Amino acid sequence: MDDILILNEAELRERVRVDLAIIDVIENAFAALAGEGVAMPPVLSMDFADANGEVDVKTAHIPGFDSFAIKVSPGFFDNPKLGLPSLNGLMIVLSAKTGLVEAVLLDNGYLTNVRTAAAGAVVARHLAPANVEAAGVIGAGVQARLQLQAAHLVRPFATAYLWSPDSALNQEAAARLSEATGADVRIAESAETVVRESQLVVTTTPAREPVLMADWVHPGLHVTCMGSDQHGKNEIDPVALDVADLYVCDRVSQCEVLGELRSARLAGYLTDTTPPELGQVITGAAKGRATETDFTICDLTGTGAQDTAVANFVLSQIRASGAGTRFKR
Amino acid sequence: MDDILILNEAELRERVRVDLAIIDVIENAFAALAGEGVAMPPVLSMDFADANGEVDVKTAHIPGFDSFAIKVSPGFFDNPKLGLPSLNGLMIVLSAKTGLVEAVLLDNGYLTNVRTAAAGAVVARHLAPANVEAAGVIGAGVQARLQLQAAHLVRPFATAYLWSPDSALNQEAAARLSEATGADVRIAESAETVVRESQLVVTTTPAREPVLMADWVHPGLHVTCMGSDQHGKNEIDPVALDVADLYVCDRVSQCEVLGELRSARLAGYLTDTTPPELGQVITGAAKGRATETDFTICDLTGTGAQDTAVANFVLSQIRASGAGTRFKR
Repeated sequence: MDDILILNEAELRERVRVDLAIIDVIENAFAALAGEGVAMPPVLSMDFADANGEVDVKTAHIPGFDSFAIKVSPGFFDNPKLGLPSLNGLMIVLSAKTGLVEAVLLDNGYLTNVRTAAAGAVVARHLAPANVEAAGVIGAGVQARLQLQAAHLVRPFATAYLWSPDSALNQEAAARLSEATGADVRIAESAETVVRESQLVVTTTPAREPVLMADWVHPGLHVTCMGSDQHGKNEIDPVALDVADLYVCDRVSQCEVLGELRSARLAGYLTDTTPPELGQVITGAAKGRATETDFTICDLTGTGAQDTAVANFVLSQIRASGAGTRFKR
Repeated sequence: MDDILILNEAELRERVRVDLAIIDVIENAFAALAGEGVAMPPVLSMDFADANGEVDVKTAHIPGFDSFAIKVSPGFFDNPKLGLPSLNGLMIVLSAKTGLVEAVLLDNGYLTNVRTAAAGAVVARHLAPANVEAAGVIGAGVQARLQLQAAHLVRPFATAYLWSPDSALNQEAAARLSEATGADVRIAESAETVVRESQLVVTTTPAREPVLMADWVHPGLHVTCMGSDQHGKNEIDPVALDVADLYVCDRVSQCEVLGELRSARLAGYLTDTTPPELGQVITGAAKGRATETDFTICDLTGTGAQDTAVANFVLSQIRASGAGTRFKR
């Protein structure tokens, strides 16, 4: 039996970054999700009411991938008061043939950031208008920056608009985004400006009330919302889902309990329809954007399939390089 | 931030074994389960139909425990053909205050074996007759031996009866059990003999049809069934649950989907009652054995609370000893 590989965040950051290679890996994972033989159980979720915390566990088995990941994502939102990051976690990689543990990736959530940004780029590739002059983001955290950085690889916009209520965060995110993409990054005066000025908008907030209103949308707009991943979160005005020419889920079974579909249905919209999934759009089993003037939305709750895909990619990179620490089973 | 502690199976075996200390730890975990503030989500389970495999993830947050475990248990039942064990896995230990990963216990399922055997002893302590002259086990795997070894610490029986269909396994289990307990260990001619001759019986099989029949039970018998932990498994004749003076679940919400309660209800028994839980018997919130002649059953499906308890115990042992390998976060 092989030893178990252990890698920490620094080692992973050296080898995996937001680039076209990982975007292709994540695209393939979504395509596989539209096919046969995928197993992806509901997210295991546990609350720590006494510590303002939660932990999620995601996994998926995708035929053709030798390994599968079990990803543990804790979010403890009082951590910043202790000088610690809110989000942490790790991935365990196991053989899909024997169940043996192959690797433990002590990434502190880094790989989740990468695979989530990559999913945004996959969406942009398949649903954004062909020409994106300006892209925008509502939110200014790590994922806000990474989403536009990834999107820029498939829709090389010249201008970016960014807004959040935190002006210090805005400054930092804008500077780093400008450096990463070379785009003209502007801090917008409002979320409304972000939406009105952009052809591609990403929402990356923990909002429980909509931060993107239906009044602001326009022909030729695509919106990717990736903030809602828990029962109770809601970034998008339910009316916007109702008026969209196309609304796509990463996984319907997740979006209806964790994503924007939940809020829209609570408000009485989309109650009788089953939206298409991103993987179906990628494979052609469902229609994507029909015209350049369509208004489209894609709802990303985050799937175990992405974790399994990024873990397989990491493992192949690591094995090729001989990196990591080997641990006796 | 502290480093992350990594331990492998050999290091864990040195420090944790089936003894009275771990039995008390597991007893406390069950008592806590009967109280307020415990979070224990349903087991996450995923099948690998193409590899005759499955993986389960269990967790629980218990107030008063500083850490919680996320336990990953793969079972790939064609592994022996490859010279590999069927059961494997690991535990991740995280802070219940910050969600930071504290330790990774690469135990290959060893800690699960220990905490499962310890649960059997907790049950024996609270539900078996005060005097157990003879104990029996149906099954001859690792858990068969550990169950009787643990039970012997709380009910020091003089004689043990063992039966499984595999005579080579029987020989090995009997020899090791005799060595560990000093009891007179006899390989029985049938499962029926095991039951008829014993006051305490444990079933430790992966059976999908009953291996313990209602006809065989007698006054003054206690049965602990720990084999059923998956939808579809069934060790105990449903009639036995119906005629028992007392039937206790480790967790009702698990036993009704994974344990003997599921099979009994399918057969039309216990449909209108909610059985007591082991933790309630321990705290006195529910009644235990009333007389020495009662026939009692306890159904163990395995709880995340046990994993969290054993992980906290391990971490305290390890920190006291300075053992393990430290890994930069």
